[in-house]
Amino acid sequence: MTDDAKDSLREAALHYHKYPKPGKLEIRATKPLATGRDLARAYSPGVAEACIEIKNDPDTARDYTSRGNLVAVVTNGTAVLGLGNIGALASKPVMEGKAVLFKKFANIDCFDLELNEPDPEKLADIVCALEPTFGAINLEDIKAPDCFIVEKLCRERMNIPVFHDDQHGTAIVVGAAATNALRIAGKRFEDIKIVSTGGGAAGIACLNMLLKLGVKRENVYLCDIEGLVYEGREKDMTPQKAEYAQGTTAATLDDVIAGADLFLGLSGPGVLKPEMVAKMADRPIIFALANPNPEIDPDAARAVNPNAIIATGRSDFPNQVNNVLCFPFIFRGALDVGATEINDEMKIACVEGIAALARATTSAEAAAAYKGEQLTFGADYLIPKPFDPRLMGVVASAVAGAAIATGVATRPVEDMKAYKAHLDGSVFKSAMIMRPVFDAARTVTRRIVFAEGEDERVLRASQAIMEETTDTPILIGRPEVIAARCERAGLKIRPGVDFSIVNPQDDPRYRDYWGTYHDLMARRG
Amino acid sequence: MTDDAKDSLREAALHYHKYPKPGKLEIRATKPLATGRDLARAYSPGVAEACIEIKNDPDTARDYTSRGNLVAVVTNGTAVLGLGNIGALASKPVMEGKAVLFKKFANIDCFDLELNEPDPEKLADIVCALEPTFGAINLEDIKAPDCFIVEKLCRERMNIPVFHDDQHGTAIVVGAAATNALRIAGKRFEDIKIVSTGGGAAGIACLNMLLKLGVKRENVYLCDIEGLVYEGREKDMTPQKAEYAQGTTAATLDDVIAGADLFLGLSGPGVLKPEMVAKMADRPIIFALANPNPEIDPDAARAVNPNAIIATGRSDFPNQVNNVLCFPFIFRGALDVGATEINDEMKIACVEGIAALARATTSAEAAAAYKGEQLTFGADYLIPKPFDPRLMGVVASAVAGAAIATGVATRPVEDMKAYKAHLDGSVFKSAMIMRPVFDAARTVTRRIVFAEGEDERVLRASQAIMEETTDTPILIGRPEVIAARCERAGLKIRPGVDFSIVNPQDDPRYRDYWGTYHDLMARRG
Repeated sequence: MTDDAKDSLREAALHYHKYPKPGKLEIRATKPLATGRDLARAYSPGVAEACIEIKNDPDTARDYTSRGNLVAVVTNGTAVLGLGNIGALASKPVMEGKAVLFKKFANIDCFDLELNEPDPEKLADIVCALEPTFGAINLEDIKAPDCFIVEKLCRERMNIPVFHDDQHGTAIVVGAAATNALRIAGKRFEDIKIVSTGGGAAGIACLNMLLKLGVKRENVYLCDIEGLVYEGREKDMTPQKAEYAQGTTAATLDDVIAGADLFLGLSGPGVLKPEMVAKMADRPIIFALANPNPEIDPDAARAVNPNAIIATGRSDFPNQVNNVLCFPFIFRGALDVGATEINDEMKIACVEGIAALARATTSAEAAAAYKGEQLTFGADYLIPKPFDPRLMGVVASAVAGAAIATGVATRPVEDMKAYKAHLDGSVFKSAMIMRPVFDAARTVTRRIVFAEGEDERVLRASQAIMEETTDTPILIGRPEVIAARCERAGLKIRPGVDFSIVNPQDDPRYRDYWGTYHDLMARRG
Repeated sequence: MTDDAKDSLREAALHYHKYPKPGKLEIRATKPLATGRDLARAYSPGVAEACIEIKNDPDTARDYTSRGNLVAVVTNGTAVLGLGNIGALASKPVMEGKAVLFKKFANIDCFDLELNEPDPEKLADIVCALEPTFGAINLEDIKAPDCFIVEKLCRERMNIPVFHDDQHGTAIVVGAAATNALRIAGKRFEDIKIVSTGGGAAGIACLNMLLKLGVKRENVYLCDIEGLVYEGREKDMTPQKAEYAQGTTAATLDDVIAGADLFLGLSGPGVLKPEMVAKMADRPIIFALANPNPEIDPDAARAVNPNAIIATGRSDFPNQVNNVLCFPFIFRGALDVGATEINDEMKIACVEGIAALARATTSAEAAAAYKGEQLTFGADYLIPKPFDPRLMGVVASAVAGAAIATGVATRPVEDMKAYKAHLDGSVFKSAMIMRPVFDAARTVTRRIVFAEGEDERVLRASQAIMEETTDTPILIGRPEVIAARCERAGLKIRPGVDFSIVNPQDDPRYRDYWGTYHDLMARRG
């Protein structure tokens, strides 16, 4: 990226966060509260009825409060993205973003909590005290090994799902990608040699998951910045790394890479050299997941071995390992059956659901969403795309089924087929479906007429259309009102320059457009 | 209330809480997140820019996150409404209701946190750890004397406003009502004798406020369930009650009521007997605030002394002492200037703002909102009505001004007049304005045609209109779609029975209504 492009992204990102109002989320009332009668039901005296019901039967909290669909994203800001220990306050934009992803992808109400508490045991105490507020907890961006302590204590003491996405979300998507990569390479988990870089939370969780999928512990070689983790090593060790110690002498990544079937990188840029790829086994699988710069450039790896099966963390290469394939849907399934935890069986169900989806025939919807991209199962399509509308139905129902089968569902779904159909239906009502719309719109240039041109939402949509497509919006409304609202909303689009306005008060086209609009509406019915 | 009416309210309240989705609030994204470009700004990599800005300058959190407009309602459920110590989970409906009131009355995003933590010092630790998440803290329904400890610790350690509404919200509204009652009675705070019942958080806070307004401590007699609080009493004492000890011998309420200018009741029903009212001073002021049944029935008090000036906690008598007159606006003012605390000066400014508003000439808007009710300053109109649209501008700007004057505003408003105008303007965009609309609508019967009859919001509005007015909605839309959506939304209204539908596909009236709609829209411009 050039410096100019970086500055431009920086400016656009800050503008996006600041306008039209600061931040990315807000609280909204879901019920009317406009009259004395509403107040009597929502607050005093009617609210006491809901309190008494919950006091008598705590399970009814899911009926009378928002708790059953409410997830907390909890962090102390000690390991934020690639930024490190920036503290709780500075992590808030990331956590709000995560909350918004929960809402957009799975219609889960999610609230972000940034806590000034570096001590893992005290942090766990706080999270445990939050149990009456939330239906589930998503731990986020807490540094290793503290995150293991927090997760363990919370899971032991809480009766709702606790999930550390950095660990388990990554491990699940890696598990799915590995399942399919091995199928293509014609190998089995039980036989492969794995060399991994990165002893952080995600790296350890991925190895734990790969063991559950069949990998033998003695075939795993874990390296970190100090080289191979071996028995007796003292520098920079944790109990979690020690579980994967190999041998008793120091060694480098280069020393152990020979014959590796799978390289798993969760470390930093350029760690895997092309000459190391040359030493790997036949049809090597390379997961170079460091972001934004992977452990090896996919093209460089392929130059050494054209048969390499490669995944990264980036959206501009095939096989993006993205947690959004997992976390919205594993929580959706867990919440829907009132699961008291997210156990290994539910995680494995999630792995298998994601992997199976990539192997299934691509649906018309998914194809439409990713027009022009390779969506046939193979080395360049190991895992589904993040906006694949089938993810919700397949993954959430698999997770719910596993929760029921393992006896942790307090409210089992009776008709799984109906539940899956409900999930599938809900996707198309959500904002996710916007992606396909925009992508499809990219391919043709059209004029789009908006009847409610003075509406701020229409103005925002128009800006998005102009940024994302070649289409030209035409807005019906009073020019001075539209100009004032664009300015108020902090939009960059300039009326009359970037788009046309039809003034209903004096433009002959007005009647024409309205006529067409009515015809369309009538035809729709 | 009859048993049938109680059952009906109970059923309606539970239905309201449960449908169309459980609870009263949800989280919403405020920014578009429909395309890869949005994702790049909202999440990776653009979000890092916002994090870095905040890391470098923590004050910018108010620009790049929702924090600056975000208030936590925090409880441990130990003293909920009239229900007592029902625990954190069962208190959630009350806290969600409170959050919704913040939003509706002052457009403050408010999230409710119910914490399983009975220990006041540990509760304070948790609240303090939440500082990076919120712009201000509203403590709620925590039992006395624990609430004093929590509030004190949090105020000492936190750099954002911490306000315990049960104490200070009540004290502020009582202070405003007392200010105006004394003016009508022709008395001064400095001279009056006060007899108070109730040694809880609200009772103590009201007495503390009255002292700040000029009352002499030696003129205050505090009674509780054990009778007068006197020096040396041992049973059921707290340090807060001991501050108001009078004399050294036991006495009853009846023993000390003679000559009292102001009775302040925050205790239970029927505590103040008519014969006690007879012993009070000339033009006695009686604040009988126990809910739902006051310390004395206003009619019974007035039967003894027609000159009594009376306030209660009930909406069906004049002078309802309702915290909603205070808390939305004191937080609005504090947040808008980035106040680091809510200090005494800000509370007094709030008292004076509320009191002055009742004495001001009633605005056309307020008159319209409360058609037919007495809104001229006097014994039956000591304090404004909760839906008075002027409260926001008057109270929030007074609080902001006091914060600036006392040096606790980190972001002082420069043009106070423009700020007040902005506040006044924002009220009319908010849902508050619905109340006047509904109340005015009560007086005439009209037919109201909705063009977007299939929209769920229109259907909900239609149900509200039918419940609250004599108007008849007419909806334009396909009957089968409207019927399905009513059912899905859990609405009780029956299409074709409770309201008429005009089917655009086959009804001749359709063209007529559309024509009228268009003419109206054109005229508006």
